[in-house]
Amino acid sequence: MSQKKELRIGIAGLGVVGGGLLKLLEGPSPRVGGGRLKVVAVSARNRSRKRDVDISAYEWFDDPVDLAAKQDIDVLVELIGGSDGPAKKAVEIALKRGAHVVTANKALLAMHGEELAALSEETGGRILFEAAVGGGMPIVKAVKESLAGSLVYALSGILNGTCNYLLSEMETSGRKYEDVLADAQRLGYAEADPTMDVGGFDAAHKICILAAIAFRARPDFAHVGIEGVEAITLDDIRLAGKLGYRIKLVAKAERIGEAVSLHVRPALLAFDHPLASIMGSLNAALVDADPVGRLTFIGRGAGAGPTASAVAADLMDLLEGRGGPAFGAPLGELAPAARAQPEERGRFYMRLIVNDRPGVIAAVSDCLAKEKISIESFLQMPAAPDAPTVPIVLTTQPCARVALDAAAKRIESLEAVAAPPRIMPIEETDAHPHFWN
Amino acid sequence: MSQKKELRIGIAGLGVVGGGLLKLLEGPSPRVGGGRLKVVAVSARNRSRKRDVDISAYEWFDDPVDLAAKQDIDVLVELIGGSDGPAKKAVEIALKRGAHVVTANKALLAMHGEELAALSEETGGRILFEAAVGGGMPIVKAVKESLAGSLVYALSGILNGTCNYLLSEMETSGRKYEDVLADAQRLGYAEADPTMDVGGFDAAHKICILAAIAFRARPDFAHVGIEGVEAITLDDIRLAGKLGYRIKLVAKAERIGEAVSLHVRPALLAFDHPLASIMGSLNAALVDADPVGRLTFIGRGAGAGPTASAVAADLMDLLEGRGGPAFGAPLGELAPAARAQPEERGRFYMRLIVNDRPGVIAAVSDCLAKEKISIESFLQMPAAPDAPTVPIVLTTQPCARVALDAAAKRIESLEAVAAPPRIMPIEETDAHPHFWN
Repeated sequence: MSQKKELRIGIAGLGVVGGGLLKLLEGPSPRVGGGRLKVVAVSARNRSRKRDVDISAYEWFDDPVDLAAKQDIDVLVELIGGSDGPAKKAVEIALKRGAHVVTANKALLAMHGEELAALSEETGGRILFEAAVGGGMPIVKAVKESLAGSLVYALSGILNGTCNYLLSEMETSGRKYEDVLADAQRLGYAEADPTMDVGGFDAAHKICILAAIAFRARPDFAHVGIEGVEAITLDDIRLAGKLGYRIKLVAKAERIGEAVSLHVRPALLAFDHPLASIMGSLNAALVDADPVGRLTFIGRGAGAGPTASAVAADLMDLLEGRGGPAFGAPLGELAPAARAQPEERGRFYMRLIVNDRPGVIAAVSDCLAKEKISIESFLQMPAAPDAPTVPIVLTTQPCARVALDAAAKRIESLEAVAAPPRIMPIEETDAHPHFWN
Repeated sequence: MSQKKELRIGIAGLGVVGGGLLKLLEGPSPRVGGGRLKVVAVSARNRSRKRDVDISAYEWFDDPVDLAAKQDIDVLVELIGGSDGPAKKAVEIALKRGAHVVTANKALLAMHGEELAALSEETGGRILFEAAVGGGMPIVKAVKESLAGSLVYALSGILNGTCNYLLSEMETSGRKYEDVLADAQRLGYAEADPTMDVGGFDAAHKICILAAIAFRARPDFAHVGIEGVEAITLDDIRLAGKLGYRIKLVAKAERIGEAVSLHVRPALLAFDHPLASIMGSLNAALVDADPVGRLTFIGRGAGAGPTASAVAADLMDLLEGRGGPAFGAPLGELAPAARAQPEERGRFYMRLIVNDRPGVIAAVSDCLAKEKISIESFLQMPAAPDAPTVPIVLTTQPCARVALDAAAKRIESLEAVAAPPRIMPIEETDAHPHFWN
């Protein structure tokens, strides 16, 4: 691929991001590309919808697949979304005829990344997707290119701004999940159906993509353990805080021996953990790699501006002849997805709801002792005036997750325990050990 | 430039970084490049010096300029250092014959970047330098490529690990500058002649390079205002702390209207400023750009591992046909360096050493009032038992630096004032305002 005089661009999807991109690329003095990034055609659901930008100069397509098939378009910018349907079809059509694709579609890449990378290698059409992970935070390029000289051990991040906003709001306002979510929906920070975000699926798509690049393995969405934020209570946030932790939805990919562990789930971070201070809708990522050490990236993970900026950077890569294989290396050099979920060890948080009666604490700690799990801290707060139950939280010393699950089964069967124990991992603050320096 | 089968590499300079690079590229299973990055020749001051790595398989050159001239070397890796002398000569020879250069040499790029970029454009030999700024932190590529779609307003960072280590140590240990420096020299964290680091020159080289890329202007080292950390006292650190600030050596490039302001100097950061928590030898950079918003990068700014990793990433860029013009755009598209130093406004810190006598505070505040400067906070601590003088610190409300300098002149002439006032800017915590989103 070499430098081009200009790129003829078709944009499929003119929502918030598509509109922002047009604003960035067009107008009397374009902000990027010096006029060499030329939008020639667009497609969206509704041609006549009122928009900030004038689209009358572009060829219009009702169907994004027809737009993708248009022979004189060098790059399809896919901003439709969704892992299947028209987005997938349009991307395939473009790649099949050797055109390039720039997309912000994490679901598509997580679910069909391998297939699309194969198509891209076949025809020479490239697929770039900086905007799919972390919005304007340039984490895809960093892992793909800047970390080419290091071996990644672990990658963890706050990759869903909606969840982080909800958790931040619960903590600062002291209001419960349902109320904060309803407000966020009213303000447009959360979708009417928030499942993709609050269920952890969006963050799972993103960590799946990053892990493929970082570990040089084929993307494998089925392998991601996913847990959302819906079950986090104000008690969890408050009691974890008293023990010195903040609860975050952490997306994490970790090399354990030859296997890779992939998770999205709520976790406890000590207040001095680098991700603990990421509040509101920000995104952040930590990469621990050898020999580069720990790298931290923070930025705005969504919105018209950051996302359009990331799409524009990908377009500039194509214009200037950069941009390599989809996942950083040809498919043939990627390891098959390492499906084995290695046994997890670490420190954990456990929250119990108990009927406040003598002997409960002794019974709980006995269940843990039977699995040889030592308690690190234990906290019971006074029960609310006429509340029949009271929350108890504890943190463990390092132990095997399977042992903790076994202890939790025992605890659940105690008569005084009113609900299944809630377990969350504690993320350690220190970087992975590395070998040099 | 297109993808290569392999790159034949010559390394000039086998110190800490050169040794680390050999370790990364060589050995039975190379960590990067799959055997396609081939070291064929090396040069250093002393062939027989005891080294961690075996160099007997490589052709040896006593003179790096001869190594650079060797026709079958595709890339010269320049790790000699210094803005002139053999480093410059070797880089020029390599570029002149169309070979590529990868270098960690910030002084060379800050002083002669324009000249070298011109040479590179003439012959097609590329010059990449991720390792020159921020060690393993991929800030050069981020500003050059990932921010291509945004307009940068301001870029600030902690870019010299030695200074940051010294300031962190002074704060945590309560020991004075000279003692902490002597320890750092003993431990190898500071050079025997520490001027390059503690005088602010190393950070100035780095911000000069980043500013050229970020603002699309020719690098202009003469334009950087430089002040080091040598004059910072324990009193400054302690009293700033009591007012809620930490002192850091901040390198900053800022667009003010059509002009660019470039500074390296000690500044006060509120404890919640994103750079305030960067301790020890870490590096960090904040970029405020429209429409991407604020991006934060943190990483290890020096050492064999991080620097070798950055050099290796540049080599991979060359191997895979990436890597563009030296400063992100052809010289013809770079604005001439904007030399005008715009008038500075902001909040400031002023430290005075006064003879403790009635009326001093009134006299000082009168000098400020005469220049229409309002005081934001004022702090005098009890004098040490038999100390003849006492430090007083104050912070101002936003004002023009020229007005403050005029007030400082008045204050200096007061009889009770024992030394010239020490002024440092306060860096605001919030990101630059941006236009969208």
